[in-house]
Amino acid sequence: MRLATLRNGGKDGQLIVLSPGGDHYAPAPVATLQEAMERWDEVAPALAAIADFPHPLHPAALAAPLPRAWQWLDGSAFESHGALMDQLLGISPEKTGLPLMYQGLSDRFYGPQDDVPMADEALGIDFEGEFGVIIDAVPMGTGAEEAMKHIRLIVQINDWSLRALAGPEMKTGFGWVQAKPACSMAPFAVTPDELGDAWRNGRVCLDLIVDWNGERFGAANGEPMGFGFHELVAHAARTRDLVAGTVIGSGTVSNPNFREIGSSCIAERRGIEVVDEGAPRTGFMKYGDRVRMEGRTADGRAPFGVIDQRVVAAR
Amino acid sequence: MRLATLRNGGKDGQLIVLSPGGDHYAPAPVATLQEAMERWDEVAPALAAIADFPHPLHPAALAAPLPRAWQWLDGSAFESHGALMDQLLGISPEKTGLPLMYQGLSDRFYGPQDDVPMADEALGIDFEGEFGVIIDAVPMGTGAEEAMKHIRLIVQINDWSLRALAGPEMKTGFGWVQAKPACSMAPFAVTPDELGDAWRNGRVCLDLIVDWNGERFGAANGEPMGFGFHELVAHAARTRDLVAGTVIGSGTVSNPNFREIGSSCIAERRGIEVVDEGAPRTGFMKYGDRVRMEGRTADGRAPFGVIDQRVVAAR
Repeated sequence: MRLATLRNGGKDGQLIVLSPGGDHYAPAPVATLQEAMERWDEVAPALAAIADFPHPLHPAALAAPLPRAWQWLDGSAFESHGALMDQLLGISPEKTGLPLMYQGLSDRFYGPQDDVPMADEALGIDFEGEFGVIIDAVPMGTGAEEAMKHIRLIVQINDWSLRALAGPEMKTGFGWVQAKPACSMAPFAVTPDELGDAWRNGRVCLDLIVDWNGERFGAANGEPMGFGFHELVAHAARTRDLVAGTVIGSGTVSNPNFREIGSSCIAERRGIEVVDEGAPRTGFMKYGDRVRMEGRTADGRAPFGVIDQRVVAAR
Repeated sequence: MRLATLRNGGKDGQLIVLSPGGDHYAPAPVATLQEAMERWDEVAPALAAIADFPHPLHPAALAAPLPRAWQWLDGSAFESHGALMDQLLGISPEKTGLPLMYQGLSDRFYGPQDDVPMADEALGIDFEGEFGVIIDAVPMGTGAEEAMKHIRLIVQINDWSLRALAGPEMKTGFGWVQAKPACSMAPFAVTPDELGDAWRNGRVCLDLIVDWNGERFGAANGEPMGFGFHELVAHAARTRDLVAGTVIGSGTVSNPNFREIGSSCIAERRGIEVVDEGAPRTGFMKYGDRVRMEGRTADGRAPFGVIDQRVVAAR
């Protein structure tokens, strides 16, 4: 089952269900995805039972599947990414053996084709291609095995980052505020079964195809996460109840063979350049630049649809 | 004007307006405080015009004035607190000259008399007495002077912390997730004018009286903030639009003469003990312990009402 949200002038839009072919939709019998997450056990069968999809789908009419969420917790579960970022930032964070995670802005997720306004081109505007999950309510103390059952939907995210601010904020120990503006989501939130065996061990085992201004930038696969999403959920739930509709991110998708397959963010390529050439060579995004991201199956399908958007100056 | 939220079985409760004496209330002509923040310019005059307060107020029926928020950004603006905490944690975070701030759990604020469930007594359960502000929508890039006008309400907060997890999470650079469960709010959110000249320079210049199990623990004043709330708001808005209803916290209220007036959290007292005696002596909270917090005017009033609650084991 694939779900999306149609813009309707409200803050949360109108939840819709996609036809199997993805070119038509039916309005869901519940107004919003947030409401569906709050009553998933009851709502999901009604969504799955829809057989008539009368309306043609126009991707430009779609918001993020969850246009705002009560909580966004982003991990950093790909070790090859973390190692390069530490090198680039010149830091040696303590290794705890636990997942890395921060809480980010969740009152807005940009839609897949929205222009993304940034405060200043000089702040090191970067994309970060990620996968994520949306859970229903998870009680405090839930373990990883049980947490797996609460993973109801899978999404694809661009976690926008301002690199000039990221290192200094990390060094405070307080995490990121200014360095992390609102994220974007690909148009379709999908149930795990939609991914077939590409959903295994709590990982999204798909290539994330990233193009920057029309040129291939990366095609890293989601499989080599150091922790599965179920383990990230359990980590997040250790000392808090997780509210229904919480979004948990993987962190930048990255593979150890980054020299062959490329990266899902510019900072990582710059880290490689530092290692290989002694200094970064690739600049960050400029106003007007586009980034396109598409999680792709082995047979060429894009279950989450496509993020394709442009960075612009705020106001 | 003082506002509160009556429990009504829903997630956001019913907004009410207090009588001048604070012992009666009228239902607000808008359902929730979130809605009031979204339409403040239109709603505030209607709230202020209420002259008839027919219902007696029962404090036990009150939720947090804002039972959940789209965003909670907590500063750490009292330098005497920061210096002691660094000493206790054995860290030397880089000084940036900018406010310190993290984004915390905002999908739940406990009411002033709620029992507070914690995952494990061994995690170093601590209170943190703070002041905070609730803003209406603030556009990205708003400066401090303009930000001052968006401070619509002032609140009093207990930012619960798990100290055994706080230091390790800081050292990752990602900030706190497990170390920061849901916060509590005192019952009344007040407009700045309610504080008279105790609201000046963007600071809440009141003593925050903190009692732990019936014994006086601290009475620090909110005046010596290193940054005013308007500066914290501007910091938060540098690279993001701030959604209406965002809550911004001061961080633990702390004064340089902490040896005379005490502290607003246990960790700070432990820091003093480390400095004075070479090791911490005071333990953290145990299940069943109570903490009481009351911001108090010079003439003995408590404009925010009182937080008085108990720590209990989760489930």
